[in-house]
Amino acid sequence: MQDRSTPVSDSMESREPQPELGRRRFFNATALAGIAGLAACTDKSGSAAPTAASAAPAAHGGAANPTHLKPGELDTYYGLWSGGHTGDMRVLGIPSGREILRIPCFVPDALVGWGITNESKKIMGTKPDGSLRYTVGDTHHTHASYKDGNYDGRYAWINDKINSRIARIRLDYFVCDKITQLPNVQGFHGIFPDKADPVDPAKNFTTRVFCGGEFGIPLPQKGTLDEKQYRSLFTCVDAETMEVRWQVLLDGNCDLVATSYDGKLAASNQYNTEGGAKYEDMMSAERDSCVFFNIARIEEAVKAGKFKTIGTSKVPVVDGTRESNKDAKSALTAYVSVPKNPHGVNASPDAKYFICAGKLSPTGTVIELAKVLDWFDGKMEKLDDAIVAEVELGLGPLHTAFDGRGNAYTTLFLDSQIVKWNLEKAIAFYKGDKTAKYVVDRLDVHYQPGHINASQSETKAADGKFLAVGCKFAKDRFLPAGPLHPENEQIVDISGEKMVLLGDHPVRGEPHDFIFFKRELLSPKQVYELDAFPNAVKDPKDSGVTRNGKKVTVKMTSQAPAFSLREFSVKKGDEVTLILTNLDKVQDLTHGFAIPGHNVNFIVNPQETASVTFTAGDPGVYWCYCTHFCHALHLEMRTRMIVEA
Amino acid sequence: MQDRSTPVSDSMESREPQPELGRRRFFNATALAGIAGLAACTDKSGSAAPTAASAAPAAHGGAANPTHLKPGELDTYYGLWSGGHTGDMRVLGIPSGREILRIPCFVPDALVGWGITNESKKIMGTKPDGSLRYTVGDTHHTHASYKDGNYDGRYAWINDKINSRIARIRLDYFVCDKITQLPNVQGFHGIFPDKADPVDPAKNFTTRVFCGGEFGIPLPQKGTLDEKQYRSLFTCVDAETMEVRWQVLLDGNCDLVATSYDGKLAASNQYNTEGGAKYEDMMSAERDSCVFFNIARIEEAVKAGKFKTIGTSKVPVVDGTRESNKDAKSALTAYVSVPKNPHGVNASPDAKYFICAGKLSPTGTVIELAKVLDWFDGKMEKLDDAIVAEVELGLGPLHTAFDGRGNAYTTLFLDSQIVKWNLEKAIAFYKGDKTAKYVVDRLDVHYQPGHINASQSETKAADGKFLAVGCKFAKDRFLPAGPLHPENEQIVDISGEKMVLLGDHPVRGEPHDFIFFKRELLSPKQVYELDAFPNAVKDPKDSGVTRNGKKVTVKMTSQAPAFSLREFSVKKGDEVTLILTNLDKVQDLTHGFAIPGHNVNFIVNPQETASVTFTAGDPGVYWCYCTHFCHALHLEMRTRMIVEA
Repeated sequence: MQDRSTPVSDSMESREPQPELGRRRFFNATALAGIAGLAACTDKSGSAAPTAASAAPAAHGGAANPTHLKPGELDTYYGLWSGGHTGDMRVLGIPSGREILRIPCFVPDALVGWGITNESKKIMGTKPDGSLRYTVGDTHHTHASYKDGNYDGRYAWINDKINSRIARIRLDYFVCDKITQLPNVQGFHGIFPDKADPVDPAKNFTTRVFCGGEFGIPLPQKGTLDEKQYRSLFTCVDAETMEVRWQVLLDGNCDLVATSYDGKLAASNQYNTEGGAKYEDMMSAERDSCVFFNIARIEEAVKAGKFKTIGTSKVPVVDGTRESNKDAKSALTAYVSVPKNPHGVNASPDAKYFICAGKLSPTGTVIELAKVLDWFDGKMEKLDDAIVAEVELGLGPLHTAFDGRGNAYTTLFLDSQIVKWNLEKAIAFYKGDKTAKYVVDRLDVHYQPGHINASQSETKAADGKFLAVGCKFAKDRFLPAGPLHPENEQIVDISGEKMVLLGDHPVRGEPHDFIFFKRELLSPKQVYELDAFPNAVKDPKDSGVTRNGKKVTVKMTSQAPAFSLREFSVKKGDEVTLILTNLDKVQDLTHGFAIPGHNVNFIVNPQETASVTFTAGDPGVYWCYCTHFCHALHLEMRTRMIVEA
Repeated sequence: MQDRSTPVSDSMESREPQPELGRRRFFNATALAGIAGLAACTDKSGSAAPTAASAAPAAHGGAANPTHLKPGELDTYYGLWSGGHTGDMRVLGIPSGREILRIPCFVPDALVGWGITNESKKIMGTKPDGSLRYTVGDTHHTHASYKDGNYDGRYAWINDKINSRIARIRLDYFVCDKITQLPNVQGFHGIFPDKADPVDPAKNFTTRVFCGGEFGIPLPQKGTLDEKQYRSLFTCVDAETMEVRWQVLLDGNCDLVATSYDGKLAASNQYNTEGGAKYEDMMSAERDSCVFFNIARIEEAVKAGKFKTIGTSKVPVVDGTRESNKDAKSALTAYVSVPKNPHGVNASPDAKYFICAGKLSPTGTVIELAKVLDWFDGKMEKLDDAIVAEVELGLGPLHTAFDGRGNAYTTLFLDSQIVKWNLEKAIAFYKGDKTAKYVVDRLDVHYQPGHINASQSETKAADGKFLAVGCKFAKDRFLPAGPLHPENEQIVDISGEKMVLLGDHPVRGEPHDFIFFKRELLSPKQVYELDAFPNAVKDPKDSGVTRNGKKVTVKMTSQAPAFSLREFSVKKGDEVTLILTNLDKVQDLTHGFAIPGHNVNFIVNPQETASVTFTAGDPGVYWCYCTHFCHALHLEMRTRMIVEA
């Protein structure tokens, strides 16, 4: 068997010969021809066996591949990955690319009992009948809280696009502790915390999270086909209380979100300034926008009562439409023009620029934040003069990462490449210096990259060591396992002039965005505090069954290899609330608790308390057993629920 | 930063100094002292920083580590992993240890829409109101279908312990296609397909799947504390129809299951022959059993009507209790004695032996199958004479794998080791040759290993290249990420005399069992056949909305970057059935379909059709969007559901 094995299945598309057109040639020839190229990633030649160029293994200069950790060796970076429509957040170790944890947020998780325990149901939200309000989710973007321009290890946030929810993750216990639904928003997509207060310099840390609304809808909601009545909102959520502070009514939609290091500006790229309802209409204009928000002015307007509310929501909504914000000196928003259907807006670690990528234009646009502030201050007349570069990068540019040495790395979806380009040289080129070679390097990736990020890229401490790139199509990169392919997260060494591809990592669909940062920035806790749970059963002697009519409370503790109650009796139809405290104190000594036939299974980590409420079923013996391997006598660790007639 | 980094968190248990007792010393000292050692894995010293012995990186002879694949390089083995209480099956590539796919079975999966689409709900089973009967699961063991002593790539099966269900996975499309609930069984644990028919030599392939029932319950079920009335059943399921063929009433319980290559025998180890209800009672006897089933005789008895039925179940139940099977010449079952609370029974690839591991005894027991058949045939008087070896291996032996060269590899849970031992030498030693050195090698693993398997180990084609071992505790092996640790699946090179640890792989809890085999044995399909779906919308022209009273059917197709209907209207309260066919034909071109506020999200793979039924909510505009990245215009790929009042 050779290293570059061909796929093993006869049925694979990649076996179909495509002698005339290699993957690269096809993209370059047709995509440049215009809109036809947008379908390039659907062409069969895209799944052909890699050409010599893309198949060549990374030349890693003979040094050990740093993604290949020795047994027992720890990763040096934490990665926080969104899970897409698995609805979770994932924790990866970088550079190994290994997934260490999944954190359930918006969607039930059978492993931990998320959506089963009373505690998790309260966070997720329930209907009046006690069942979960939502059972699906679609997480896209995850970002963490800042202090002094770097991550401070308190929180991360993640969006749910399907039901417009924002979840907060505590980065000490790595659990979701709050979920908020945004009012009057559909398709909540981009999310970014602020990095400082726009007014109070003492607050050089995150206190707000900004959320972009992507889908225009009637406000308030009603059923109408007339898309001219549809509008989107940009939302500010309080980082601590997780309550919605205010919203901004917009022209056009919101896609991704970025924030400045001084706290003064947030921005969202807008790919549908046309307000179209069909994709042809959404891409009819040659230029769209990146809309900037003047945070201090918006909050002054809210304070001054210059807002309305929409429907039953009490959230103040200020007017950020173009018509109402023509006067720079009072404007809350500023719409900088950027080329056709931009995707992605990213803040450079030197705090100077936001970069928008063109998607349907082969360009990257560099916007200088000081100039946007100049416009707001009336010091610069034409807003678009804030654009200090707009340079050609390649086909289908989407997202941009940074190495802290002045270089940007942008994914080219259609080209299946990363382009490394130098910001100052791009600015010089745009200014007229045609000798400025701003493209430094290009690297083929596999295939169709979306999000990209570099180590510490979204902080002032960008260290330029590794790049992760989320490739949307894996095609032939892994053993074929039926029609559903994994995504391919690739790790790239960016420590030198040339990028070096280090490794492929299959991931369950569909991570979109991710960040990764030095492990020293977090201080995780691996054992809970017993007192943190008001309903904790602190002593096995407190175990027992109490009845109040048809309502029964069962209190129990776990200590390997036994539950404190060896059996307990209830009656058919009882509403049983079972409270379980894990008294084991050692890290990694988690217990599970399953009841056959009752849809109950959940875990309790060391010193954790969790509870479930269920209706006792038909008479019989139900062996409740430990589902999380804990001890040599794990199989024998059980209690009996006797359901009497 | 050094290679052997210490954990980064101040709060980690491992920071607590444990100068007196290293991990190894602790286990060896106390565990040998008896039952106290059973709690060894809960001791804090277990999470102390690794000692020099366990921390030493693998000496891999300077050769490239074969688990470290170059970018684009494919794995050489498929691995099928159970997911534990995530309720799924997982597909891994080996030797890299990368997870390529999760196959939802018993538990809803928000990514693919498992438990959301009508097609998946039909497989999972629903209550009269249309909601899912079960939302939790606990998969433990997965094994695949055989032909001529090797895997034939048709099916795999996996158990659900919580609700006693068996799921079948098609290994062409890698999807679950049938789930059967076992009647009158609680705690369905061990599972194994047969490898041949016991009577018809032409059927040298799998036609039955055997399932062990672990928890004794009253038969029929009723609420009683008297455990003497509890019994377990061993169940045979038809591999093709997935219907339950017959069951065997037993003394004692069933744990793991093994089958012989000639189809004549199946067996299950029994850890609770005492029929105890508490762990102390379950471990009171010095010896338990491995119960053998004479398949041909059982099926003759069923055919002859020598069975009863239990409760409302119509499944024939034959009597396999000790009292009724004393006469070898007519016995359906044979209870071979094995030491205290055995865990695991494994068939050697030379087709000669079943090996039981002692768990609470430091021994492995080798049972010769020809001798068990001799006993059934009346040729051997004492059944326990089938035991040809019972040798000391170490503390907490659980499961055994094989290299095809006469060696066995057994996990030692308490010792945190794998012991490599030679079967023929063990037999010679047991026979009296005290010079026979049956232990070949020992390897520390990290930590508390449960299941183990080797490449092709459960087939006649065992190739002795790689070993995978499922370590239940990861402790300090990965970056700390809160209280819930991953498991640690380690890959070991067994091609030489000495075992070599190659790599650590964190996996989401809790894989139990797994198999891995040469990739050439499977022929996966990566595009569906349109005609395989009776409700397929084969032409975009067939799209549309039809109404029948309050029931509305919406037919739609997807072709990147558009759905065939750009909008559709329904009325509040309508029961809407939406049928979506993905007309894209290219592998990896999967689309998703989400409806905000309606708990609808599912995917359609190339040429697949899926449907959902939901009640239309409040009046408004609902943007249904593609959730699975498909195209440069993926964000623009939407349709509008207009809900009218």
